Amino acid sequence: MPGTPEAGSVGVVSTQTVRLFTAESPLTLEQGGTLGPVDVAYETYGTLAPAADNAVFVCHALTGDAHAAGWHPGDPRPGWWDNLIGPGKPLDTDRFFVICANLIGGCQGSTGPSSTNPATGRAYGLDFPVLMTRDLVAVHRALVKHLGITRLLAAIGGSLGGMQVLQWGLDQPEDLANALVIAASSRLTAQNIAFSAVARRAIMSDPHFEAGGYAAAGVNPDVGLSIARMMAHITYLSEDALTEKFGRQVDPNRVQPGFGIDFTVESYLDHQGQVFLERFDALSYLYLTRVMDYFDPFAEPKILERVLVTPVNWLVLSFATDWRFGTNHSRRIVRTLEQAGQPVSFREIPSNYGHDSFLLAVEPYHATLVAYFDRALSEVSR
Amino acid sequence: MPGTPEAGSVGVVSTQTVRLFTAESPLTLEQGGTLGPVDVAYETYGTLAPAADNAVFVCHALTGDAHAAGWHPGDPRPGWWDNLIGPGKPLDTDRFFVICANLIGGCQGSTGPSSTNPATGRAYGLDFPVLMTRDLVAVHRALVKHLGITRLLAAIGGSLGGMQVLQWGLDQPEDLANALVIAASSRLTAQNIAFSAVARRAIMSDPHFEAGGYAAAGVNPDVGLSIARMMAHITYLSEDALTEKFGRQVDPNRVQPGFGIDFTVESYLDHQGQVFLERFDALSYLYLTRVMDYFDPFAEPKILERVLVTPVNWLVLSFATDWRFGTNHSRRIVRTLEQAGQPVSFREIPSNYGHDSFLLAVEPYHATLVAYFDRALSEVSR
Repeated sequence: MPGTPEAGSVGVVSTQTVRLFTAESPLTLEQGGTLGPVDVAYETYGTLAPAADNAVFVCHALTGDAHAAGWHPGDPRPGWWDNLIGPGKPLDTDRFFVICANLIGGCQGSTGPSSTNPATGRAYGLDFPVLMTRDLVAVHRALVKHLGITRLLAAIGGSLGGMQVLQWGLDQPEDLANALVIAASSRLTAQNIAFSAVARRAIMSDPHFEAGGYAAAGVNPDVGLSIARMMAHITYLSEDALTEKFGRQVDPNRVQPGFGIDFTVESYLDHQGQVFLERFDALSYLYLTRVMDYFDPFAEPKILERVLVTPVNWLVLSFATDWRFGTNHSRRIVRTLEQAGQPVSFREIPSNYGHDSFLLAVEPYHATLVAYFDRALSEVSR
Repeated sequence: MPGTPEAGSVGVVSTQTVRLFTAESPLTLEQGGTLGPVDVAYETYGTLAPAADNAVFVCHALTGDAHAAGWHPGDPRPGWWDNLIGPGKPLDTDRFFVICANLIGGCQGSTGPSSTNPATGRAYGLDFPVLMTRDLVAVHRALVKHLGITRLLAAIGGSLGGMQVLQWGLDQPEDLANALVIAASSRLTAQNIAFSAVARRAIMSDPHFEAGGYAAAGVNPDVGLSIARMMAHITYLSEDALTEKFGRQVDPNRVQPGFGIDFTVESYLDHQGQVFLERFDALSYLYLTRVMDYFDPFAEPKILERVLVTPVNWLVLSFATDWRFGTNHSRRIVRTLEQAGQPVSFREIPSNYGHDSFLLAVEPYHATLVAYFDRALSEVSR
């Protein structure tokens, strides 16, 4: 059970890297063209059962990485979903074999726009191909195959992670017994796209962006990337959560009113923007936000044909105060899947923390996942 | 009545400028220090009654100006509140004498941070003093006096305009028979401040900001200012309005998916950011957003003492889909005024257009104003 003394850590972990596609045998991309080599950084937690029937694939969100749980030596913080994954935790590593891989297009070990382009010997920059959600899933599937697994017990993800799970379940329902789509969307609204468009504008108009060639120029679009993060961060939190946390508190370091940091919420945002620079790449931000913009699987006329033949058990979760991908986004997914005769469970989780709730140990959320995974495992055992 | 054939235009108008404070007799500022000279650009529409009892002062919002109604020669668009102000319109210039002045700190004719600092002979830049809402009102009062008016029939404003009206009514209730506070707030939330903080960051980190000295350097922080505007513009519209207007429409000029303008909502935002550069100054954006951040009149223990003696008739309006200063902001104003025994009318106007509704000819909104102004004038006549 979450929060009980039994719940523990997966301990010290390390990221592995595998080449899943080569220059000679590249990944064929949804938009045309190919990508190769494709290296993928991933981590696993727990033990694969002899029948290989206890594997759960974790799809990460926009700025996540392969390090979902446990501790890297010297790192003061555990993986980004450590409250969820571990012995005795909702995604219980005493029972499940958990896989998490850095997305291609990302910047934490998998091939992305800052990787070396074999055609030029320099970083791809904006020559990196435009990716779609299907491309991300194609690489996940190659990793699963590499690990000797033919069918996952489940795939799970929040936000962009949930969008990968949705695409995967629709395209290859035979791959997944269960698909957990959390705080996600089946298509971004104009407002969602607008926020990302402004973030990209901030990055691309930073003079240090250098038309995507900043790495070769020895600079980084820090200003634009931090502005993008600050703005996005506002959309990840509910208005109430910001009010509770900061209200109108004046920053203790303020000398006099002016245009520095006067309110604690400004100090907080500034910090969020700065620490982001240490872990994220501007080009990855462009590529992966565009993946989200383009995502619109239900617009494809035949997208539901495969699940009509091979249903998947779906769990769709939203959070009450999420105004990025709120409950209306989840309801659309639920309605469409139900119309295709899918077994869908849906719950709107009460939580004050907005979109970021999917990353937090919100009690009714974790309780729902515990119950769901218990059932999922019992159905395998039958 | 709004929209009837009788409703007309105030015609061709021109902006006048008056020096209300001089270097020798400057404006004393709320935060300490003084400002002088203070020039104010203003327009008037209609005719002041012999008893000078039909004057309505219009307070503009963050990026407004003195040109609220009518036409400037050669300008393809009328004033920003032309749908409201004119013969036969809700603010009927056949009956009312309407005054609108550009805010100090602004950039359309009134003294602001890009005006010449008499101490240096160059633009103030960041040496311009930090302003508070009371300073804006002090200048409005000086203009009213200059025009020979001792008491206004009403002051009206939306957003930052409504905040000026609130401050004015609380501080000098004897100045106003009626105070119309529309889509405003008595204190910004952490989320409100956060959005403005990111906008200011975009402006101030533009290399062409030059620590506020961009004018002298012959440059302009166009990139930062347009990013600020694009982001703010998202918050002015409801999510539904953006969806209705743009949805997920692909821009007709898109060649292929990438990082240009792929969706029409991106094209729209880009346009908004670009046209804003032609009419607004980056330093004014900093100063006037900070005025809003600092606004918190009800935090002053004795703020309600004056209206207890001299009540004002208050009309408070919010718009159902406004998520910048939504109905909860208006309700707080209403509650606090009612506790001080003020006669307050409140209405939440159904409108799909978010915060921007206060600028639009939304039928129930204009109808409410027509009825309110009819009553206000009839009470004068009694």
